[in-house]
Amino acid sequence: MNGGDDDGKPEAHGAVMDGVYDALVADGFADLTMQDIADEAGVSKSLLHYHYDTKQDLLVAFLDHLIERGKARAAEHEDEPAPEHLRKFVGGALVDNDDEDWAFATALLELQAQAPYDAAYRDQLARNEAFMRDHVADIVRDGVDAGEFRDVDPDAVARLVLAAVDGARVDRVVVDDDTPEVVHDALLDHVLADLETDEPGAPERRDGPGVEQ
Amino acid sequence: MNGGDDDGKPEAHGAVMDGVYDALVADGFADLTMQDIADEAGVSKSLLHYHYDTKQDLLVAFLDHLIERGKARAAEHEDEPAPEHLRKFVGGALVDNDDEDWAFATALLELQAQAPYDAAYRDQLARNEAFMRDHVADIVRDGVDAGEFRDVDPDAVARLVLAAVDGARVDRVVVDDDTPEVVHDALLDHVLADLETDEPGAPERRDGPGVEQ
Repeated sequence: MNGGDDDGKPEAHGAVMDGVYDALVADGFADLTMQDIADEAGVSKSLLHYHYDTKQDLLVAFLDHLIERGKARAAEHEDEPAPEHLRKFVGGALVDNDDEDWAFATALLELQAQAPYDAAYRDQLARNEAFMRDHVADIVRDGVDAGEFRDVDPDAVARLVLAAVDGARVDRVVVDDDTPEVVHDALLDHVLADLETDEPGAPERRDGPGVEQ
Repeated sequence: MNGGDDDGKPEAHGAVMDGVYDALVADGFADLTMQDIADEAGVSKSLLHYHYDTKQDLLVAFLDHLIERGKARAAEHEDEPAPEHLRKFVGGALVDNDDEDWAFATALLELQAQAPYDAAYRDQLARNEAFMRDHVADIVRDGVDAGEFRDVDPDAVARLVLAAVDGARVDRVVVDDDTPEVVHDALLDHVLADLETDEPGAPERRDGPGVEQ
């Protein structure tokens, strides 16, 4: 290997991963070439080919990198109260995005649309989906355990939240409208509010009205 | 024109539209050719080219056909109570699908992923999204007007439901798991149940507990 850091990745790994990101933002997925990525990363095309036989291999490594980055980010807010943590997650996915983030989301949708025809992409996207699902389910479970949320199935709520987030992001990419903002507010108003138990003095919802009064 | 029916479409219009559908199911979007469509439709390639200059023109006409078909289907259930109508909509999108439906959804996701690069596809998909949004918002509005749902913003609820439906469908296409079934149940448990006011004797939720008791 051409040098390496602690986890055995090549020295230029970070630059190459940034190069893949920048090339996807600039060119999209369909027209992406190894030369585009080398140019964006500031490395030679031969260095890329030394580490990755094909563009597919490099993109699989990039998806792995995204998952690791997602794990690092997920750990940042883990000590927050669950309602605030879930609000930040939904906000980060739907409203805290700039044009570059949406350009990347556009390229990623192209890659996702290829996954049914490509087992290597599909496996990495499935790993990412499983990680995101566990992450959101953990937030919900923490909220239930802390009495901040009523007693719900954390996996089912996580999948509902993720599906709404993913669907709103696809809608933004495909037709470029304000669905992320509207769905963000609707998730807080209709799902998060329905989970929360912290209205002062209110009994948990779904216990039936007035049972203990 | 080569013959025509009442609305000026060519005689073979239905067969051609069915041919596009069958070719997308069989071949996906990326590899689709006019010859594939002609073969599936049982018409000559020259007839296709007589009516449609390019594959893109034909696919735009096909998206228009899907919207018209969606409108016809939407009208079928319009006299049902809103909760039942919304349940049928969510069930139809998430659990009443066979392998062919999912193969078509896979091809449609490829086409959606091209929309950011293709204004003609994007315009038709935006028309479809607007129609679906209005359709679901109308169901919610009917439910509010009939006292079956509490007083919510029909557009916001419609976008939340559609985003969750679309996201779950994308997840199924990309990683082939059981998300549609889980999200179906979670939408009924967490969104529809939160809207409904028809528990016998229960006051509307969100009015605070016990106010009128």
